Amino acid sequence: MGFGAKYIGIDLGGTKIAGILADAGGNIFCQDKIPTKKEEGKERVLARIYSLIRQLMKEAEPGEVKGIGLCSPGPLNVKTGVIIETPNLKWENTPVVALMEREFTLPVILENDGNAAAFGEYRYGAARGTSDMIYMTVSTGIGGGIIANGKLVYGRDYSAGEVGHVVILPGGPVCSCGRRGCIESLASGTSIVREVKNRLAKGEKSLLQEFGGENLNRLTAKEVEAAAVQGDCLALSVLEKAFYYLGIAVGNLVNILNPEVVVIGGGVSKMGPLLFEPVQKAIGLSAFPHMCRDLPVVPAQLGGEAGTKGMVALLHRKVQKG
Amino acid sequence: MGFGAKYIGIDLGGTKIAGILADAGGNIFCQDKIPTKKEEGKERVLARIYSLIRQLMKEAEPGEVKGIGLCSPGPLNVKTGVIIETPNLKWENTPVVALMEREFTLPVILENDGNAAAFGEYRYGAARGTSDMIYMTVSTGIGGGIIANGKLVYGRDYSAGEVGHVVILPGGPVCSCGRRGCIESLASGTSIVREVKNRLAKGEKSLLQEFGGENLNRLTAKEVEAAAVQGDCLALSVLEKAFYYLGIAVGNLVNILNPEVVVIGGGVSKMGPLLFEPVQKAIGLSAFPHMCRDLPVVPAQLGGEAGTKGMVALLHRKVQKG
Repeated sequence: MGFGAKYIGIDLGGTKIAGILADAGGNIFCQDKIPTKKEEGKERVLARIYSLIRQLMKEAEPGEVKGIGLCSPGPLNVKTGVIIETPNLKWENTPVVALMEREFTLPVILENDGNAAAFGEYRYGAARGTSDMIYMTVSTGIGGGIIANGKLVYGRDYSAGEVGHVVILPGGPVCSCGRRGCIESLASGTSIVREVKNRLAKGEKSLLQEFGGENLNRLTAKEVEAAAVQGDCLALSVLEKAFYYLGIAVGNLVNILNPEVVVIGGGVSKMGPLLFEPVQKAIGLSAFPHMCRDLPVVPAQLGGEAGTKGMVALLHRKVQKG
Repeated sequence: MGFGAKYIGIDLGGTKIAGILADAGGNIFCQDKIPTKKEEGKERVLARIYSLIRQLMKEAEPGEVKGIGLCSPGPLNVKTGVIIETPNLKWENTPVVALMEREFTLPVILENDGNAAAFGEYRYGAARGTSDMIYMTVSTGIGGGIIANGKLVYGRDYSAGEVGHVVILPGGPVCSCGRRGCIESLASGTSIVREVKNRLAKGEKSLLQEFGGENLNRLTAKEVEAAAVQGDCLALSVLEKAFYYLGIAVGNLVNILNPEVVVIGGGVSKMGPLLFEPVQKAIGLSAFPHMCRDLPVVPAQLGGEAGTKGMVALLHRKVQKG
């Protein structure tokens, strides 16, 4: 084990909690994942986070750990360290930073999970060496984070970077946010599955027809991908439409932010060329040619570690600034 | 005349060139406007800019003028000081900064006119005291600029802030940029007039019917506004639709950037409540409630001086940094 400053990064998700012990270079010395078991309530989940942290700390020399960083779905307040709301976990107005600082007498920081992953990719992943980047994660929902002039864009309420909720089809499908026509309602895993179901219900022929009746609940974007790979017309057509919209949304962000790189992560991005090719093509339908010229639109590199590694990088920056 | 550092700000437009002599507080000591006469060619226009600058310098004590700032439509390169292209003026690859520094032996800076106006409103106008703001100018086209974390967002090619070219109606009307469904193609003065013409051509009744046949060329957004004020249904319906889209586009920017204030300037914004009320209403169709809560969406305060004053503020910042 190397000697020197180390940091603990925790990524609190709806189903899993991931934790790493790493140094400022993003080298991981120890990591673990535990189930969130959110149904057991906030106190028990917090206790589980604490014991995960203690276990990670055991792998460091005394005094080596310089801080703990937690990322979680928002909205949350980075400045006050309070989770305002997590629809998924049902934590309301929880001063996690104060609670954890009391528990560990170490500096603790809190960050939105989209921003943390963006910062991770920026510092250690697919956007290394840039100062203007857009990170998008496409999975059941669509989230992300933005770096401009080498800094995370936070905005007034630390809520900037809601790249999944730009409306590009006014009056379109209802989104998880309650509004209509957001890109999340058109290109997320959930929306892809919804569209396939709708078209199966209309009697379209497809390899996915086995997902009729009660089996429909088991259908995920993974099966849609598998069907598309086998040349299934319905699956291909649904994905094509979803990623056409995704490309337009990315192009819009390009016009607004003129990034050096666009990084796309999340479960749906694992479809690879099935996603990246139509996205790359559709970007030009909204973005100016000189801004999409030689613009890398690339897969995220850190996978499930983007959030925890991002927290390590943010902690290191904070400790350096003093 | 006050004694101290003074700056010259020049706003090079397609029809007029505006110039001011001002101090870092934005106090104007002298100003003038001259016609661009772009048809006379680049050399003559440059000569006219030089004589405007000389005239403004006469109003300062010797040595008081610390720099000259020029803003112009882009694309241009802020770093190299080269106007790459101005479709309007037909200047191509013109190293204006080098040319002007040789002429005046003073520091010269170049900026995109949307960014300059954004910075002017940020420093002296409707966004004073904020660190995250969006500026939009709605006139014949739609442009703007973005400030995040207290800095202009430039991006890779100094081209960020193209807020008029976010597509919110894929496959919609053809835009001046050649693509389809940009907000400029839906809510600019030009698009408002185009929509009125289309509906008149279909035989709809309106106070604007006098603008039939050859008179159509004289129709501007101003007449549409006047008809709307008189309760004309066609005019009201066209404006309502345009500003509904504009509100959705603003809401998208709010979700991405979470600003403290949105400033809207440009000729069309002078319609006042006719624009601001529907925009304010439609923002909520795309933006998250907590990001539009208490979010001021306000008229620009500097009018035609936003660009020149912005250049003065940018010059002052540059000189201070050394």
